Amino acid sequence: MVSTADPLSITPAALRVRRLGEPGIVSPMAELLQSRVSSPHYVHELDRVLLDDTVDGAAARLCDVADLPSLEPGGPREYIYFDPAATRAAIVTCGGLCPGLNNVIRGLVLELADNYGVTEVLGFRDGFRGLVGDSEPVRLTHDLVAGIHNRGGTILGTSRGNQDPSRMVTTLQHYGVSLLFVIGGDGTLRGAAKIADEAVRRGMRLAVIGIPKTIDNDIPFIDQSFGFQTAFTRATDSIKSAHTEASSTPHGVGLVKVMGRHSGFIACYAALASHDVDFVLVPEMPFSLAGESGFLAKLRHRVRRQGHAVVVVAEGAGQDLFEYDGAVDASGNARLADIGALLRQRIIDDYAATREELSLRYVDPGYAIRSVPANAWDAVYCLRLAQAAVHAAMAGRTAMVVGRWHGRFVHIPIPVATGGRNQVDPNGDLWMSVLEATGQPERLF
Amino acid sequence: MVSTADPLSITPAALRVRRLGEPGIVSPMAELLQSRVSSPHYVHELDRVLLDDTVDGAAARLCDVADLPSLEPGGPREYIYFDPAATRAAIVTCGGLCPGLNNVIRGLVLELADNYGVTEVLGFRDGFRGLVGDSEPVRLTHDLVAGIHNRGGTILGTSRGNQDPSRMVTTLQHYGVSLLFVIGGDGTLRGAAKIADEAVRRGMRLAVIGIPKTIDNDIPFIDQSFGFQTAFTRATDSIKSAHTEASSTPHGVGLVKVMGRHSGFIACYAALASHDVDFVLVPEMPFSLAGESGFLAKLRHRVRRQGHAVVVVAEGAGQDLFEYDGAVDASGNARLADIGALLRQRIIDDYAATREELSLRYVDPGYAIRSVPANAWDAVYCLRLAQAAVHAAMAGRTAMVVGRWHGRFVHIPIPVATGGRNQVDPNGDLWMSVLEATGQPERLF
Amino acid sequence: MVSTADPLSITPAALRVRRLGEPGIVSPMAELLQSRVSSPHYVHELDRVLLDDTVDGAAARLCDVADLPSLEPGGPREYIYFDPAATRAAIVTCGGLCPGLNNVIRGLVLELADNYGVTEVLGFRDGFRGLVGDSEPVRLTHDLVAGIHNRGGTILGTSRGNQDPSRMVTTLQHYGVSLLFVIGGDGTLRGAAKIADEAVRRGMRLAVIGIPKTIDNDIPFIDQSFGFQTAFTRATDSIKSAHTEASSTPHGVGLVKVMGRHSGFIACYAALASHDVDFVLVPEMPFSLAGESGFLAKLRHRVRRQGHAVVVVAEGAGQDLFEYDGAVDASGNARLADIGALLRQRIIDDYAATREELSLRYVDPGYAIRSVPANAWDAVYCLRLAQAAVHAAMAGRTAMVVGRWHGRFVHIPIPVATGGRNQVDPNGDLWMSVLEATGQPERLF
Amino acid sequence: MVSTADPLSITPAALRVRRLGEPGIVSPMAELLQSRVSSPHYVHELDRVLLDDTVDGAAARLCDVADLPSLEPGGPREYIYFDPAATRAAIVTCGGLCPGLNNVIRGLVLELADNYGVTEVLGFRDGFRGLVGDSEPVRLTHDLVAGIHNRGGTILGTSRGNQDPSRMVTTLQHYGVSLLFVIGGDGTLRGAAKIADEAVRRGMRLAVIGIPKTIDNDIPFIDQSFGFQTAFTRATDSIKSAHTEASSTPHGVGLVKVMGRHSGFIACYAALASHDVDFVLVPEMPFSLAGESGFLAKLRHRVRRQGHAVVVVAEGAGQDLFEYDGAVDASGNARLADIGALLRQRIIDDYAATREELSLRYVDPGYAIRSVPANAWDAVYCLRLAQAAVHAAMAGRTAMVVGRWHGRFVHIPIPVATGGRNQVDPNGDLWMSVLEATGQPERLF
Repeated sequence: MVSTADPLSITPAALRVRRLGEPGIVSPMAELLQSRVSSPHYVHELDRVLLDDTVDGAAARLCDVADLPSLEPGGPREYIYFDPAATRAAIVTCGGLCPGLNNVIRGLVLELADNYGVTEVLGFRDGFRGLVGDSEPVRLTHDLVAGIHNRGGTILGTSRGNQDPSRMVTTLQHYGVSLLFVIGGDGTLRGAAKIADEAVRRGMRLAVIGIPKTIDNDIPFIDQSFGFQTAFTRATDSIKSAHTEASSTPHGVGLVKVMGRHSGFIACYAALASHDVDFVLVPEMPFSLAGESGFLAKLRHRVRRQGHAVVVVAEGAGQDLFEYDGAVDASGNARLADIGALLRQRIIDDYAATREELSLRYVDPGYAIRSVPANAWDAVYCLRLAQAAVHAAMAGRTAMVVGRWHGRFVHIPIPVATGGRNQVDPNGDLWMSVLEATGQPERLF
Repeated sequence: MVSTADPLSITPAALRVRRLGEPGIVSPMAELLQSRVSSPHYVHELDRVLLDDTVDGAAARLCDVADLPSLEPGGPREYIYFDPAATRAAIVTCGGLCPGLNNVIRGLVLELADNYGVTEVLGFRDGFRGLVGDSEPVRLTHDLVAGIHNRGGTILGTSRGNQDPSRMVTTLQHYGVSLLFVIGGDGTLRGAAKIADEAVRRGMRLAVIGIPKTIDNDIPFIDQSFGFQTAFTRATDSIKSAHTEASSTPHGVGLVKVMGRHSGFIACYAALASHDVDFVLVPEMPFSLAGESGFLAKLRHRVRRQGHAVVVVAEGAGQDLFEYDGAVDASGNARLADIGALLRQRIIDDYAATREELSLRYVDPGYAIRSVPANAWDAVYCLRLAQAAVHAAMAGRTAMVVGRWHGRFVHIPIPVATGGRNQVDPNGDLWMSVLEATGQPERLF
Repeated sequence: MVSTADPLSITPAALRVRRLGEPGIVSPMAELLQSRVSSPHYVHELDRVLLDDTVDGAAARLCDVADLPSLEPGGPREYIYFDPAATRAAIVTCGGLCPGLNNVIRGLVLELADNYGVTEVLGFRDGFRGLVGDSEPVRLTHDLVAGIHNRGGTILGTSRGNQDPSRMVTTLQHYGVSLLFVIGGDGTLRGAAKIADEAVRRGMRLAVIGIPKTIDNDIPFIDQSFGFQTAFTRATDSIKSAHTEASSTPHGVGLVKVMGRHSGFIACYAALASHDVDFVLVPEMPFSLAGESGFLAKLRHRVRRQGHAVVVVAEGAGQDLFEYDGAVDASGNARLADIGALLRQRIIDDYAATREELSLRYVDPGYAIRSVPANAWDAVYCLRLAQAAVHAAMAGRTAMVVGRWHGRFVHIPIPVATGGRNQVDPNGDLWMSVLEATGQPERLF
Repeated sequence: MVSTADPLSITPAALRVRRLGEPGIVSPMAELLQSRVSSPHYVHELDRVLLDDTVDGAAARLCDVADLPSLEPGGPREYIYFDPAATRAAIVTCGGLCPGLNNVIRGLVLELADNYGVTEVLGFRDGFRGLVGDSEPVRLTHDLVAGIHNRGGTILGTSRGNQDPSRMVTTLQHYGVSLLFVIGGDGTLRGAAKIADEAVRRGMRLAVIGIPKTIDNDIPFIDQSFGFQTAFTRATDSIKSAHTEASSTPHGVGLVKVMGRHSGFIACYAALASHDVDFVLVPEMPFSLAGESGFLAKLRHRVRRQGHAVVVVAEGAGQDLFEYDGAVDASGNARLADIGALLRQRIIDDYAATREELSLRYVDPGYAIRSVPANAWDAVYCLRLAQAAVHAAMAGRTAMVVGRWHGRFVHIPIPVATGGRNQVDPNGDLWMSVLEATGQPERLF
């Protein structure tokens, strides 16, 4: 996966994570580990993971190793910043649902309690709203989080949109919170950074750790966002339905709309997983409908040759085919025009114009792909992200997110994580795989 | 389940199944069975299953046992009508997809070949079209049907609409077919009856056996149609999504549209299976939107009290809320107005009018519930239906369908099976269960 | 399905359900229903469901309709016996796990609270032990039962074995319980009958209603026990594994052991659902291993012809091949010898003796088929069973179980439900379907 | 994940992949791509992926970039070695089943045919046996591989053990094969290397490409082997069963045996995914049973405190607790002693000795975790591995395997891939996560 935030443009300095102060307390993890692990794997200050692991990347700047952009690894530290006995944590979930939210919540609560002895964990309800409203936070206990990892959604509720950082920090102060875990997308994470800034301004010792949530997998410098695998797996079911319908009727066309506002990862992975897809339309690759080499002509051609065809379209694809009316949603994102409905109508019209027979099946799984429980892989990943987030918070890091880069858990400053967008690279190996698997022409215009 | 075709209105004569002639050949099944079963369970001419098994039903007409309306049981006969060595069979699948089509096809092929020695089985493609067109039928062998029962759809393809019976019979004559298995809904079954009539007219020995297919479970005198369980199971997933979404956001409303043109069985069963539904709207029960006791007011009330609500609506519900434009689909059925879209808009408008906050999630699983493979229960049922269909055909029955009534496989004349519609009884125990489980008022107007 | 308890041997008198007294209170259900149902479907005293619905069955005794053995239907009554405001209910789950236990618990709690206003519902822990021990029962509230229907197991815990009825009734008196719902198998139900008897002896107004639980589907006069469909569905997965393994290696044999102590229903249904099974061995059908027509010779023959074979064996099959050592388990049931291990070894020895190659895969899903959550069908059935149980209890019935017979919910006196065993009829249509689908010889000796 | 084959011990030279000759033909992929991709992403000769991407790793040897051990990336080349029109390919699957085998087969066939125009693809049956026996290979066409990716097992069959390289090469010569794709584990891959050597000896232009298969994920320098995710997902179901059983009975212990001969990855990942496990026993971490700090004492302690406990044991764990009898299986691997049975018995004995109550449930999913179809993630991965394998073969690479390292598809010489074993690092972050999630002491002796 390639990001529009080019690794080569990132300086080593930008990758440095902010710290509240120097760690001074021996970690309970360390005490525990010393009693049970022969040579415990603490993360040392000098450990770094290279941002770019190609020889070209290394050669491009190679004068001194210290000059290579690299990330701080996640994991337990021997010395920590917060005294567990005097620490209260809080959790908040924001934005749209994503598989794994409850797993992250449970992972945070259990890691804090079982491995650090932080038993005071508050859950604020309904996203950032819960930090400015009158509703009491809920006390998150072992009993309360038992079994929640097998359910979709979030037990804390969620809402869209940011709130006034000052009011939120006042609430956190009121409840004596010193660790805040924010699970949300890029808008939410920017809000989290503002909370961290405001806390610094007030001289408050508050560690703000983000766990980046994006079902579209569009946050940069993260191998894969949590819930993404579960989501594209579920999308695969819809593609199977569409393929079954299309291939069971004469002149069958199956059209499936999947999530993906700016990035077509769900569309690409779901199409590859089904391996029965003929066209994948994503936001990164423009296309036209009419014309000899346009989508409609190519589709008709494929149906004629093969008897049927399956098309997967990401919701954010083909937005240039509409005039934008300026509408935004509650999170402030531009409201997308309905490309699924447009394609459906245009395919029908096109077949009507040529008087060819058509049996079109339109499938839109909608919310179904984001409200399911995390699959086994995401369950592991969410748990480990939560562990890494707790380690980072206890070590006094702030204004950062945890993620995984090239298979390693790392710390990423919020500005870097929100400073670009992970997208399908038109010249990269993922899109190449899609072109090979579908046989579709790259240029549909 | 109660049918609009009242059992009390059916005469014993109407339940008699048409026969091509007297059985004269010892069944290979009988020979096989004699060698391996101590006392084989053939079906005898006198076995009958009561249509109505309540004491009231019996008392209502009780003068002579022979007067009680009853059905001929399905199963193997000791003597059969067709000589397996000289018999060629054909299969055709018609209308919309339904889980289990491939299971029925495989069941027919294996029962014919393995237990009767009828190895010539042709599959006509794309529904009744395949019986009038130029395309060659496919020879259905063991190899060809291996593993198809694990796939959704139909390997024979399907299409909507009837064809000229005379042309179809000519095709069957051309291929020397004497057993025709027609898998389809009520329109298709009426077409099958016409084929049987035309064959009689021509003095042709053709057994036409229907395997009734209706994902809506709306064919009368059948406990449950094949694929129905699989379909409502799949619909349950969508309800779970809607419930997860609705209960994870403030003022959440989950609205789910499921199949069910004239009968609300899928809606009722899926709602009971989830046990998290607040309103079930079905074609059998009219409702109004506006007004104190209308749906919208009751919905708002439920959301206020409970924080969220889930609504399941069958596609055929509330059609009186639209003006019908006379449109029909390829099968000649009235095209339904989109009650899902209407409800969605009216709920949004209603909340906008009262300036209350609303977070509405609309889920429409669409084709997804009918293109999946049969679940284990439907797999068993499809196989046994296919076995019963082969037994009936080999015994010389025609113009009938196989079904299950009160747990027993039975033969039902096509006019009886297509002469009414199975619907949710407003005064019956299923609807009572729904009212108890949802707590919704019965009168929504 | 046919029972060893022959319907013809049951007298009408034996089917009469015991009552605590005459109903005197207008049911809250009735009040609710009158406000919302046009003509509510109460169950009247004269409604009865025939035990035998064949014409032969009717003719066999036909002099007077009242002489036909028939069952009391389940469902809401207009008048009830207990005053909801003064009623406390209790629930206990006993014996081995079965899919749907939590669904029944939730169904009981919600029906009692939402439709009758009985809000005091206690859950006794760990089966009948909870009725004699020191542990406090848990108060079952809406919150506590939210979401439990999506989980396997039982939130109340369970244990095997009966306890002293006198001590149990003393506990129930102590807690002021007047409705007791007992979910368990035939041993448990006999224990429930003793509780009912002891309560009568003490002049205590206690309604004891059983919800029969048997994953083996071996309780008579019940179409199908709850959890059975889920269980055989899960067993089907194991058969698929075995078939995949066997058919991917030369000379592959897949051997699958499934539950079924005395009745082979799971083996039969799972084999039919897979439709890839070659031999089904059940407790009802004896077989020998050695000899020309014994199982081992027939298996070798099938592998030679087909390249591989799949065998499904119920745990209770072939017990006559062992000498019984008299061991019993905690429920007092005879401990079964391990037929799976025996077959595995004997197949290996047999192939070794003939020096033929063999690739044997043994699969024993064990507890996996009983600890999963109920599937959608069982979820509906459990909920409706729970509703029927509450209706029966509130109407003052006792010492009975709820069940479904020929598709209708009915009341069955405990002695009838525990007085025989539902088994696969060697001459019935289910076993016939198995023989047709597998092609196995019926006589394996 | 850390390998016993230490990256620091690998020299740059060892990572160089063997080539049959210089590429001379313009790739059809290149022609296709030029017509449809703006700037196609060919892999250039200078692209390399660093084996170790930590700054420490880089610093350790940093004098010259070219000295850093690095891998050749996979992907399409502009120029290829084989002329597609004159090329015949062959596929063989060896060893035990693994989810995804059919996906790899289908991926190879479609990539060869659709993107390179190599339409002659032979499938040899039953592993390496098919290369020495009399059975004809099957011609793999589009029709034959349609839908196979939705099935477990391998349509080509498989067997264990190697065969004489000379005879195998003679067979390949006989059929005119120049591309051989071998899907199998380390034993198989060593066999593949011998085939490549023998071909070189004969001066035969044969590209031998391995697709490494190991359900245990124990092949080094590969992020994760195909089928691993599907397998541990399936193992998670068994853990859920065990947890449901254990937590539903007093003093419940759930014991689950999973695959993992030398590496405990399945045990670790499945335990993390369930997040309800109390002890994970793997081959990499020795433990004793008896004694104060032994496993049995710690287990009893956990059950007393928590009411129940769940134990996951890899089949290869605790082998030092047995005396090895020298037995080997058909692949020449040491036959493992049954640690599951031992633990089960020792736990029972231990509780019997202390006269404490115990309710032990033992679950062994066995073959069930390896015979299921690939999940969506593995489906994508298998398809892309197959694409990479075809690219490598067409470019004239040989005696190598394709894999993914730090998220990039790479070429690995067979000696490197089979020269060590990927194992759970006792001091690494995965095992740390397991210790944190289970709370188990690391030292169980």
